[in-house]
Parts: sequence; C-alpha cells; structure tokens
Amino acid sequence: MAKDFPSREQNYSEWYNQIVMRADLAEHSAVRGCMVIKPYGFSIWEKMQAALDKMFKDTGHSNAYFPLFVPKSFLEKEEGHAEGFAKECAVVTHYRLKADPNEKGKLMVDKDAKLEEELIIRPTSEAIIWNTYKGWIQSYRDLPILVNQWANVVRWEMRTRLFLRTAEFLWQEGHTAHATSQEAVAETEKMLGVYADFAEQFMALPVIKGVKTPNERFAGALETYCIEALMQDGKALQAGTSHFLGQNFAKAFDVKFANKDGKLDHVWATSWGVSTRLMGALIMAHSDDDGLVLPPKLAPIQVVIVPIYKSEEELKKITEKVMPIKKALEAKGISVKYDDSDNRKPGWKFAEYEFKGVPIRIAIGPRDVENGTVEVARRDTKEKESLSQADLVNKIAHLLEQIQDNLYKKALTFREERTYAANTYDEFKKLIGENGGFVYAHWDGTPETEEKIKEETKATIRCIPLSNKKESGKCICSGKPSDQRVIFAIAY
Amino acid sequence: MAKDFPSREQNYSEWYNQIVMRADLAEHSAVRGCMVIKPYGFSIWEKMQAALDKMFKDTGHSNAYFPLFVPKSFLEKEEGHAEGFAKECAVVTHYRLKADPNEKGKLMVDKDAKLEEELIIRPTSEAIIWNTYKGWIQSYRDLPILVNQWANVVRWEMRTRLFLRTAEFLWQEGHTAHATSQEAVAETEKMLGVYADFAEQFMALPVIKGVKTPNERFAGALETYCIEALMQDGKALQAGTSHFLGQNFAKAFDVKFANKDGKLDHVWATSWGVSTRLMGALIMAHSDDDGLVLPPKLAPIQVVIVPIYKSEEELKKITEKVMPIKKALEAKGISVKYDDSDNRKPGWKFAEYEFKGVPIRIAIGPRDVENGTVEVARRDTKEKESLSQADLVNKIAHLLEQIQDNLYKKALTFREERTYAANTYDEFKKLIGENGGFVYAHWDGTPETEEKIKEETKATIRCIPLSNKKESGKCICSGKPSDQRVIFAIAY
Repeated sequence: MAKDFPSREQNYSEWYNQIVMRADLAEHSAVRGCMVIKPYGFSIWEKMQAALDKMFKDTGHSNAYFPLFVPKSFLEKEEGHAEGFAKECAVVTHYRLKADPNEKGKLMVDKDAKLEEELIIRPTSEAIIWNTYKGWIQSYRDLPILVNQWANVVRWEMRTRLFLRTAEFLWQEGHTAHATSQEAVAETEKMLGVYADFAEQFMALPVIKGVKTPNERFAGALETYCIEALMQDGKALQAGTSHFLGQNFAKAFDVKFANKDGKLDHVWATSWGVSTRLMGALIMAHSDDDGLVLPPKLAPIQVVIVPIYKSEEELKKITEKVMPIKKALEAKGISVKYDDSDNRKPGWKFAEYEFKGVPIRIAIGPRDVENGTVEVARRDTKEKESLSQADLVNKIAHLLEQIQDNLYKKALTFREERTYAANTYDEFKKLIGENGGFVYAHWDGTPETEEKIKEETKATIRCIPLSNKKESGKCICSGKPSDQRVIFAIAY
Repeated sequence: MAKDFPSREQNYSEWYNQIVMRADLAEHSAVRGCMVIKPYGFSIWEKMQAALDKMFKDTGHSNAYFPLFVPKSFLEKEEGHAEGFAKECAVVTHYRLKADPNEKGKLMVDKDAKLEEELIIRPTSEAIIWNTYKGWIQSYRDLPILVNQWANVVRWEMRTRLFLRTAEFLWQEGHTAHATSQEAVAETEKMLGVYADFAEQFMALPVIKGVKTPNERFAGALETYCIEALMQDGKALQAGTSHFLGQNFAKAFDVKFANKDGKLDHVWATSWGVSTRLMGALIMAHSDDDGLVLPPKLAPIQVVIVPIYKSEEELKKITEKVMPIKKALEAKGISVKYDDSDNRKPGWKFAEYEFKGVPIRIAIGPRDVENGTVEVARRDTKEKESLSQADLVNKIAHLLEQIQDNLYKKALTFREERTYAANTYDEFKKLIGENGGFVYAHWDGTPETEEKIKEETKATIRCIPLSNKKESGKCICSGKPSDQRVIFAIAY
C-alpha cells in the first residue's frame, strides 16, 4: 500500500484526493477553482471522448464550434435560464491591458477599453447557439439539426473538488432542433440511452435512468432526464443529463420554421451533456485502498510488462522474449507499456502501476524465459497466475474482457446491496444517515416536501426512475398520497 | 458556377468570404470577432486535428489541459511576453451577475463580486503552464516534459476575417521543457518539421521553413521558426510557428532542475502551435472559381455518389448497384456519401458537391446500370470519364492519391512561378506591387531597414529560409552589405 495513503474507511474524501493527485490525474492550478488535467488523467478523458464521439456520430450527430462568449443580453432572453446561471458567471468587461504608469513592469486594465456590453464566459451554450440557429432554420427541410460541441465552460463555484466540481470544466454539449415535440422528446431519451450505454459498457458503471423533479431541472428545460450512479461512500453522483427544452429557447430567440403546410411554428429543442465530472465517477466507482482501478476499455495502458533481472545480459534475454509478445498484443489493439527503465526496482514499478490502475501486469524473469512462462497479475482481484507464453495474446485479450465485466458486476452488486426501500420517515432517516445509498420512498410530489426532506436529512430526490412501477402509498414526510416511489440519496 | 459568386480575379477577398460561408464552413457570430465553425467546416478541422495529434504522439508528446484563465500577475512575469500580449487581452473582472433592480428581466454585473486580481483569457499559455511546470520539475529525471494542449485562445483583434484572424480561435500549443539548450533547439526544429510534413502531406500545401527576424519573433522567444505558404493572390500566410524560448520562462517562473551532478540550473523551453488559421490556408491554397477544392486526405466526404433517375423503379435498380460499391469503398477507408435525396435535382447536387470541394463525384444512371459503368468526375481538373464498375474501388483509391498529388504539384508550381529575386529596390517595389509572391532580396539585418521597407511597400520579411545559401550582396534598401537573401512578401 502506498505510504500515507488513507483507506476509504479512514477518510474517503482524502482517499479520493490522493488518488487524483498521486496517480497523476489532475491537480489544483494557481487559478482559484480551476484544475490542471495532467497527461495520464487526460489520456483517460481522451478515451472517454473518443468512445462518446463515435456514439454521437453513429446516432447522426456532427460536431461544430460556437463562441466562448455569450453577450449578457442573450443570457437574459430565457428567464429561467438567466436566473439559473446569473450567480456563477465569469464576466469579461475589458479587452485590453496597459502598462501601469505607477509601477514599472506591472500591467493594469485599460479603462478606455471597456466593452459596451459585458460578455459572459459560457456556462452552457443554449443562448449563443439558439441565436445562431435562427439563421440556419427557415423550413422543416432544415430540421432536424443534430449538433454537438466539445468545449470548456465556466461556472463560478465557491467550493470546488478536482473533477467533481471545478470552476472551469471540459464537456460536450449536444444541441438539437426539431419540427415536433415528439421528435425532440425521442431525441432527449435517445441521448440519455447513449449516456447510459457509455457508462455501463465503457466505464463499467451501472446507472439508473430517470427524470428529475421540477426543482432539480436544468434552468430553461421542461424536463430533465438523468443517469444516476452510486459511489462507494454511498453518495449518488449525477453522471449525465439530457434536457427536453420545449420551445423555450426558440421563443426566446424567435426561431420559427415553416412546416409542410407552410405554417410557421417555433422549433423544438433538446440539449444534453456530460463532463470531466465523469472522471470523478470513474475514479470513485472502482478504485480501492491500493489506488486507482480502471476498466480496461478506458485504461491508457492496458497491460504493463515489467522485467525482473539482475544483469544486463538477463535483461537482454527477457527483452528478446518480450518484444514479440508486445507486438502481438498491440496488433490486437491492446495498449502495452514495457517498462525496462533501470532507475527503479521491480517492486517500485509494481506499486506504481498498481496505484495507477493498469488492469494487467505481466512480470517476466530469467526463470520465466527458461520455462516459457510469464506471471500475470490482475489489478481488480489482485490474483496472480503463471501462464505459458504460448497463446498468451488470446488469454490476455480474454482476461481484459473478464476484468471489464467483473468491475461492472462488482459495482452493480454494491449498488444493489446499498439500495433500500423506506416506508416511514424514521426508517428513511436511519437508512440515509447510516448507510447512504439509494433509498426508494414515497413522496407527495410537492417541491415543499422535497425541500423539507433535504433540509432535515441532506437527501435529495435523485430521480424518478423511468422503469418505475406505479404503487400507491403515503409520502414518508407529509403522509399525503403518492402513486410511486422516487429515489433519494445524499449526492455529490 | 454558383450564382453571384465572384471569381478570384474579380474580387479575391469576397471570393474567399463566399467560399467560407456558402460551403458551410463558418460564419460570423453575434459576438464581435468570434466565429461559428459549422459542422462541415468543423469536420475538416477534425481531420486536421486527428492527423496532427497522431504526429505529435508519434514524436513522444502527450496531451494535457491547463486553465483558460491566466492571472494578470503571471502575464507580467516575462517582460517581452507581457508587452506582446497586453494590448489584446480579454479581461475577466467579476464572477457574478445579479438581477437589475431598475429593469425587470435584465441582469447587471454584481459589483460585490469583483475579483481581487483580474483574470486574462489565455492568449497563449506559457505563463500558466510554466507556473505549473515549477511543481513538476525537480531533477533531470523529470525532463523532458513533452506536452501538448488542444484549446481555445482569445486575442482581441480589431479587424477580423473568418479563420484567418478571429478574436477567439482554436489551436494546439505544445509546451516542452528540457535539460539543455541543444535539446530544446532540436525539439523546436523537430516540431517545425512535423508542421511542414503535415502541410505538405495532408494539406497538399508546399511551405518554406525558416526563422523569423527578431522583429517578428514570438513575444518571449529567443528564436521563432515558421512555415510560410503562398496563397493564390500572391500573399504569404504564416501557417505555423515553433519557438525556442531559452530559459526566459524558467527564469520568470523560477523553474530549476538538479542536473546529474546535483547542480541547479534553469530549464530550457519550447512552444509551438498551429490554429484554425490553417483552415484559411487550406481554402485559399486550392479552391477555384467554382468553389472549394479539398485535398482528399482532409475531405470529410471523399466520394459522393449521385443517382440519375426518373422513376422510383430506376432509383431502386441504381441503389442496388450503388450499395455494394459504397460498402467496398468504405471498407477501404474511403468516406462516401450516397445522396439519394429526392427533393433536389442531380444538377443541383452536382453544383453543391462541387462547391463544397468533394474530390470525386460518381454519377450513375439507368444506362450505367445496364452497361456496368459509372461516370467519375474529378473536382480538381473537372475531368470526367466513364469507368467500368469492375475494380472500381482500386481505381477510386488510386484516383484519390492522384488528386492529392496533383493539388500539391499545382500549388508548388504556382509558388515557383511566383517566386522572384530582386536586386534593386525599384525592382523589388515593382515585383511586390505587381505580382505579390515571394521575393528573395538582400537585407542589411537591421530592424530599422526592415521597418522602412514595410512602411514603403507593405512587404515584410517572412523568414530567413533554413535552406539558405550564403551569398554576399547589398541590402536593396540601405545598400549596406548582406550575406544572404531573405524572403519578403505581403502577408495575411
């Protein structure tokens, strides 16, 4: 175990921070609330991006790029949207610096270069995009517009945590325009499905698909769909959202289209996004008290090979055996690192790659060279076995699949064990307080009760699951009638 | 020819603007100086990114991400750098808006949310990155650091043009740290080579590698290397730069490392970048009076197939023939669009894909179905030929290579024809004034003469070519001795 590395039990929050920093994923920058994503962390994000981007394109979307800046007057146009984001906007007021006449070598804001209208750094791009779509849409023939953007956004947060909540973060935001409400709803649901598939198939993270309560909707949306995941400390994490925006933005920006009968109508909209927050979810979902654990599909290094040798000659013989293995693995699309650096001992390397979550470690020493074997260690279960070099490539490929599968199942079992039903408020408080987890409970459907429960227990309604079955009961808090259970949890 | 589309001869500048807008590459946004990159334009940029990213990784670099914001005090630390960028900085001064009490529905800057220190939107990231590298580097074992970032940057420009000069643009910026000056210079030159290879092999754009005069160096660099290309109007375009930064930033941010002998020394730095400006270069290099011309390696659609039919039955028979061809082309990695949309006539489609620069158009009608042929048209030469459907895939693959090759050769011939040597100032003025192009001439090496020539002729020294041969002569302007010719041109 790495030195001074707390277990999850000892200090979950510090355990998370240490993994992020010591596995070289990210660090705090000198700019308040902004992070630096380090090369190893960024290479995981690149794998996420590549997988998602392909899924977006396979579902008919194209990428584009819209300005970083949103004029203040644009943000004002959709009322709910403006209210939702006004409090966390970084505002550009000037466009020039000049030499400070009173202090040599210092710069100051040039008061003569004040903008007529302040520019907001995009917290999200609905406003600037719908202003643009106005010029792209005249008739039903111009619809649907299926566009995505990979971008940085800024939401001024007071309390930040690496990946989970930062003032600047990276994300993708899809913005689509449709001729009918039904089409837009179908798109919203389709993209929620894409997010759920990505989480489950790539991140090995089981998620629950649901809709948010009105209280928790995106500012400007008629309906917000979400995927919710459970972390190892029993807290929920919202991993992605997909919004049905109705005609709100089309009305705010006067975007109309002529339908087949030549009648003008406002366009229907969706938006959907996931961010570098997914990195936080990925880290917390699988990692253990020995460091990061990565699902093979998102691991930048899937297999590390460490030679065990005493002399240069031994190393040479090992390397001769390793090279064809490495090449064969790479030919199968497996990413391999052969760490023959001579400034670190094998034990140090073992610990290092274990901490960085490399799914499979292959060790090979002089005896292995003689016997035609290698030692294969799995990061997830810590199991080791000696395998013959013959047919190693297929065995490793299969093992990677097994690890991917095992991580998913483990996370699913964990979630199932931490999913409860509460029938009274006392029971609810006890469950939330002691175990965390997802608690299914009846709720009377009012924002007042939702707020009261939040104040008294810190638990929020994560979602109303799409798969919900109707069941009549009484609200745990108010006792009023309810026709379905919703999921409560304490959330990130 | 597209309606109202000016020829290059008639109005080169408008010709460029019209291509950008009518080929759906980009448009001006509502934010002064910022552009919207439309899906078709962005898909070309994505192809550029993918090719460059692979080249960076193949040369040992990793991607990372650093904050959008640079604290003002960081920008001040390297004096030349500060002077160079101060005048074009977008400045964030506040982090919150609030409801305007005097006007319902309006927002205003919350004066209580003023930042203690202003944040600059990065115009380039040396300052924030070198402040970060300070924490990453202790000893020679931590070097080299070979990092690249894909990002948006902002330089407040008063006169903007789509892709060529915009307030916000997309780019990549490499930032590397080395133990020795030699290593850093070698890296600077290596990355210049990568840029030149990319321009020539992917963009089909011949470039001249050189170094800038001290006047034209990047703010904070000891040496700026560049690649320079010639556009069809005889103007030069700087397509990429690679900077040797010496120890300037290491000194400004106090970044030292212990060498093998345990002695502390400042780290050596490089930075290098190309931007969405390359899109402007790509458009201007090859396009003609019928619209955009794209080299196959960067064309989002390499082959478009247009069915020529009168009845549904004819279309059905054509589609049956087309599908296996499309599939076979795609299996060879060729991107194909089959445009069987029924709301446009073939003639409209021909003009559309021609204007959008699709390298190869395949037309197929009922007679082709009978004869087992297709009509193949090249975008670059406008040549058409009837080809047998047998072995079509190999012929198309070969034709794409030919087109790529032809575009490069054509651009090279153009450049050679527009490259001159001037021996007197009169000759120089005449050449620059009448033909534009690259003019090789002697210069006395002083910034004063460089400035004078610029004022009198608008021509600047584009670079001192790396391949230069020493040749003694006299400065065309001052008559003072010179030992080599430099390249002058009027530039974008």
